Amino acid sequence: MIKLAIDAMGGDFAPYIVIEGVIKALTEDSSLYIYLYGDKYLIEEIIQKKTKINNKILKKIQNKITIVHTPFFLEAGIKHIREELRDNQQHSMFLALRAAQIEEADGVVSAGPTQALILASFLIIKTLKGISRIALAPIFSNLDNKQKILLDAGGNTDLKPEHLVNFAICASIMAQELLKIKKPIVKLLNIGSEKTKGRTFEKNAFHLLEKNNFILFKGNEEPQNILNTEADILLSDGFTSNIVLKSYEGALTITFQAIKKILTKNYLKKIISKILFSKELQKIKKKLDNKEIGGAMLLGLNKIVIKAHGNSNSYAFYNAIKQAKILIQQNFLKKIEKHLITENK
Amino acid sequence: MIKLAIDAMGGDFAPYIVIEGVIKALTEDSSLYIYLYGDKYLIEEIIQKKTKINNKILKKIQNKITIVHTPFFLEAGIKHIREELRDNQQHSMFLALRAAQIEEADGVVSAGPTQALILASFLIIKTLKGISRIALAPIFSNLDNKQKILLDAGGNTDLKPEHLVNFAICASIMAQELLKIKKPIVKLLNIGSEKTKGRTFEKNAFHLLEKNNFILFKGNEEPQNILNTEADILLSDGFTSNIVLKSYEGALTITFQAIKKILTKNYLKKIISKILFSKELQKIKKKLDNKEIGGAMLLGLNKIVIKAHGNSNSYAFYNAIKQAKILIQQNFLKKIEKHLITENK
Repeated sequence: MIKLAIDAMGGDFAPYIVIEGVIKALTEDSSLYIYLYGDKYLIEEIIQKKTKINNKILKKIQNKITIVHTPFFLEAGIKHIREELRDNQQHSMFLALRAAQIEEADGVVSAGPTQALILASFLIIKTLKGISRIALAPIFSNLDNKQKILLDAGGNTDLKPEHLVNFAICASIMAQELLKIKKPIVKLLNIGSEKTKGRTFEKNAFHLLEKNNFILFKGNEEPQNILNTEADILLSDGFTSNIVLKSYEGALTITFQAIKKILTKNYLKKIISKILFSKELQKIKKKLDNKEIGGAMLLGLNKIVIKAHGNSNSYAFYNAIKQAKILIQQNFLKKIEKHLITENK
Repeated sequence: MIKLAIDAMGGDFAPYIVIEGVIKALTEDSSLYIYLYGDKYLIEEIIQKKTKINNKILKKIQNKITIVHTPFFLEAGIKHIREELRDNQQHSMFLALRAAQIEEADGVVSAGPTQALILASFLIIKTLKGISRIALAPIFSNLDNKQKILLDAGGNTDLKPEHLVNFAICASIMAQELLKIKKPIVKLLNIGSEKTKGRTFEKNAFHLLEKNNFILFKGNEEPQNILNTEADILLSDGFTSNIVLKSYEGALTITFQAIKKILTKNYLKKIISKILFSKELQKIKKKLDNKEIGGAMLLGLNKIVIKAHGNSNSYAFYNAIKQAKILIQQNFLKKIEKHLITENK
């Protein structure tokens, strides 16, 4: 039995899509047990509605869920997370993390505010022995639909090279278990391909990554290539990856705005574009938007914690649950431990 | 009389476009005097060809040029610049810099390899008193054709906040003199708009920029907004600005490739696109490419040094000469000195 603690109230469409995702996961997988943290009345009402038409589903899930009531949850955009943690531990996210910490649950899934989840996980669950930071590792899709892991996409703006090496080890095993890649290729995001390029941080990280026997390190990757990189795992600090993502976002938005203007400049052009091109343009725009797939993993923690995207639909949330389950089942944390290197704090 | 030392052999189309630019500058401006460093025979041949049809031009320029012969010049992509400097000081770029150092010339223009020009300037010409680094400050064009300065676009991957403040002071005066902006707006490239965002570097730089009375600092700018920012000067370290430029480059290349594929998928679409859209698409692509305008300035040096783009045409090179002239005429270096802050090395 795998027990997951789920923050029912996190995310833009919670608790509705969370419950939908949970029901789908439970009906497909009898080895799961779910603790749901949130507004009991609302949750029960949704479950009732969802199972009214299908009594079989209700039977399948009714002994697989425990609802733990709390009226408190974290709003998107929450600041002062430390103060929240000090003043009110009854927020649905905190309760879910606490359940994992006291080993009532094997892992946690939440679509709540990212920075809150990272900080609260760090403080409640704590890091693995020898690791001092937590990285956020979302999965993205390449232009050829190959999936890759980008990290750190979280809040570590100032990292040490040793932190990055440990994240690379965690991500390599994550790629093996979740993406089924036997020998995941790791590359370092940098401003040039030579090992002498970049800041002191990149130069030292290159050296450490190169000499690590567990990691299949294939050197630097420049930011213009991230949509068709050979890498399964792209490494950088949280500042740089954020700069890259926001630059891509900006360039794509502006380009598509400009092209739309050209293609719809007058009535004739509008009609022709709609008939001939609009469908495919929509498709490529969506693809280039390069959104995260499923849940992002919080690497470095003592327990499995998956961050589902804030605007997840129920299928994405279901996928995040599946990710958590696989990683627990595959003994992810045990597998990592023996490969970690010592960090200079 | 303003005397400029010009590296005749630097850039993809040297010495041809360099000579063309020099001739244009000299015919328009009688206050200029040019030292040309490079292959005397080649240079004289080009001057002869260019002035054969128009004797007036020859008369105007013949007493305004001294050609200093050297068979040596730096190829694009040169490495081991320190070794070159030690072993052969006769490269055209080094001779031009030396002329400024011994005050034979008031400034230098070169389209030669960027990193070589930065390092050789640093070693030959030296920095202004109190400044320990050199920044490369190119001028870019916004979507609305407003010009802005981006720095550091050079090799300073690890900067201190104080360096950035001094660069911001230099760039503010550069914007006043070259872009004719009375109160240039300065913003800091960062991953969020709040002052608490970014690395320790950005947080400390924000604080110093905010309290500096000379700089009109308006906070952080996120990378998705750089093509329509209100800022006249965008600050970052050389690593981050390189990451941003390469991300934009990558996103634009991939998007236009994808769109071209859609618009030319079959013969009919190809014809229609060509008739209705291709001209405007070309135009917007060129605009979004957001290429540098004129020359980039090397900030922090004891003399005016302008880096013309490696693939400059003669008009761009002429513009770089004009930039150098204006900055010398306006006493740029004297104006900077009194505003600089003390740097922690």
